[in-house]
Amino acid sequence: MIEQEIEKIHRFLIVGLGLIGGSYAKGLAQAGYTVYAIDKDPAAIGYGVSENFIRQGATIEQEVSVIEIIQKSDTIILGLYPKDTVAWIQKYQSYFKPGIVVTDVSGVKQFVVEEIQTGLRSDVEFLASHPMAGKEVSGVVNSDPAIFLEANFIITPSPKNTERAIAHVKAIAELLKFRHIATLSPQEHDEMIGFLSQLTHVIAVSLMNSSTNPHLVEYTGDSFRDLTRIANINEVLWSELFLENKDILIAQIDNFMTQVSNVRKTLVEEDIQTLKQLMIQSTERRKLFNKK
Amino acid sequence: MIEQEIEKIHRFLIVGLGLIGGSYAKGLAQAGYTVYAIDKDPAAIGYGVSENFIRQGATIEQEVSVIEIIQKSDTIILGLYPKDTVAWIQKYQSYFKPGIVVTDVSGVKQFVVEEIQTGLRSDVEFLASHPMAGKEVSGVVNSDPAIFLEANFIITPSPKNTERAIAHVKAIAELLKFRHIATLSPQEHDEMIGFLSQLTHVIAVSLMNSSTNPHLVEYTGDSFRDLTRIANINEVLWSELFLENKDILIAQIDNFMTQVSNVRKTLVEEDIQTLKQLMIQSTERRKLFNKK
Repeated sequence: MIEQEIEKIHRFLIVGLGLIGGSYAKGLAQAGYTVYAIDKDPAAIGYGVSENFIRQGATIEQEVSVIEIIQKSDTIILGLYPKDTVAWIQKYQSYFKPGIVVTDVSGVKQFVVEEIQTGLRSDVEFLASHPMAGKEVSGVVNSDPAIFLEANFIITPSPKNTERAIAHVKAIAELLKFRHIATLSPQEHDEMIGFLSQLTHVIAVSLMNSSTNPHLVEYTGDSFRDLTRIANINEVLWSELFLENKDILIAQIDNFMTQVSNVRKTLVEEDIQTLKQLMIQSTERRKLFNKK
Repeated sequence: MIEQEIEKIHRFLIVGLGLIGGSYAKGLAQAGYTVYAIDKDPAAIGYGVSENFIRQGATIEQEVSVIEIIQKSDTIILGLYPKDTVAWIQKYQSYFKPGIVVTDVSGVKQFVVEEIQTGLRSDVEFLASHPMAGKEVSGVVNSDPAIFLEANFIITPSPKNTERAIAHVKAIAELLKFRHIATLSPQEHDEMIGFLSQLTHVIAVSLMNSSTNPHLVEYTGDSFRDLTRIANINEVLWSELFLENKDILIAQIDNFMTQVSNVRKTLVEEDIQTLKQLMIQSTERRKLFNKK
C-alpha cells in the first residue's frame, strides 16, 4: 500500500493543535515520527508534550521558538481555518526549509490553493488536502487518529503541484490509515463538498429556522432529528467555509430549490403521477448511498 | 394511568393487517382481548390466526364472513391508507353495531375526519387517531407492539366527538403502552405533521433528486446519509398523504424556501454577520430537540 516510505528521521510540524491537528500529531507520533506543534493555546501544547506525542511545541507569542521549530521541520501540516492557513504561510514562509511540502486540512480548496500558491516561495510546495473526518466535540483533548479509519482523504493538486509532493501527501494519509485516498481538482473538490456537506448544512439550518413552535419537540420523530442534527453548527468556521465557496454553493442551493419547486408544482396541480415519479427516482438513487 | 378500563369481553376488529394493524392486533391480544381481522391478503390473515393473535379473520372477498365479523365487533380500528379508510366505512357502516367507536391510524386527519363524519350513521362515532410509529419494513410479519413504546399517539377529536369516545381511544393507546398520548384538533395535527414529517420528506426527496453524480457516493459522509435516509419512500402512501394535506404542505414548503432564500441572500451579499446569526439561531433551536 505505502508507495513512498517516509524516513523515520522526518520531522512533522502541526500548526493548530485542535481536534484534527491533534489527531494527525498522535497518529504520526504513534507511527514513530518526531512531531512538533504550534498553537495559540499553551494548554494544547502542554497537553501534547505531557502526553508524549509532541516532541517540542510553541505558542504563537513565542516568536523565537516558533521560528526555530519551523526551521527544522520537513513537512508542515496546517490544522487551521482557511483564512488563517493563508495568513500563516504568508507570515512564516521565509523560515521554511527549502524543498519542503506544506499541506492543510481545510474544507474549501480553490480559495486556499489560489491564495497560497500565488504568493509562495518557488522552492517550497503547497499541496492542499482534506481529511474528511470529524467529531461533534472539538479540541486536542478529544483528538484521536481512529477518526481517520472510516474517513476519506482528498488530495487536491493544481497544475503547480508535482508528483513528488502528491506521493508524499498520499504517504502521510496512508500512515494515518485513512480508509480511502482520492485525488480531485480543487474545483471538483469544492463542488463535491458544496453539495454533500455545505448544501446539507444550509438545509438543516433553514429547516430548523422554519420552526417557531416550541411544542413541536413533543411530537418529533427520528426523521426531523436526522435532518436537523447538523443545524447545530460552529458559525465561525461554517460562515467562512460558505463564503469561500459561495459561487458553487449558490448554484447548489438553486439546483435544490428547483427540485423543491418541482414537488410543490405537483401539489398545486394535483399531479399525482409526477409526484410518484419524483419519489420513485429518489428511492432509486438513495439505494446507491446505503452503507455497504 | 388507565382512566377507563376496557372490559375483557370487548372485541376489536382490525381492518388492514399490515405493520401497524398487526402491531395493534398483537398488542391487544397480549392484553387479553379478542381480536378479529379483515385484510385483502389471505396470507396476512393466515399468519394472524396461526400465530394466535387473531381469533377470526376474513379476506375482503369473503363477504359473508366480513359482515359476520363486523356485526360482532365492539371497536373497529382501520389500519388502511386514508382514502381506503373513507371508502371502507362508507361501504360497511350499515353493519356496524349501534354505539361503537371506530378509529383509524392514518397520517392526515382533516381529510379523513371531514369525509367520514359527514356521511356517518348518527348512532356510531368515528374518532380519528394517529399512532406515530413505524419501521423501515412493512407487513404483518414484521409487526411488533414494541414499536409503540417510544411513540406518540395523537387523538384528533372534532366538535362531533364525545368525551366517551375520547376516553375509549385513550384507553386503547394506554393498553398499547404508547409513550405519550396527546390530543390535537385535526388541523393542528395536520400542521404539525406537515412540518415534522411531510416537509422533511419533500426535502429528502428533493435533495436526493438534486444529485446526478454517481461518484458522490464515494465521498458521502453521515450528514448526507442522515438527510436522505427518508428519500427512500413508499410513493403510493406518501403521494396520497401529500395531496390530502396539500394546502398546509405548500405553506410549509414556502416557509422553508423563504429560510433557504435568507441563507442564499447572505451569500450573495457576503453578509457574514447575518449568516452567523442564522447559524446561531439554528444551533440554539436544535438544542431543544436533543433526545432526553
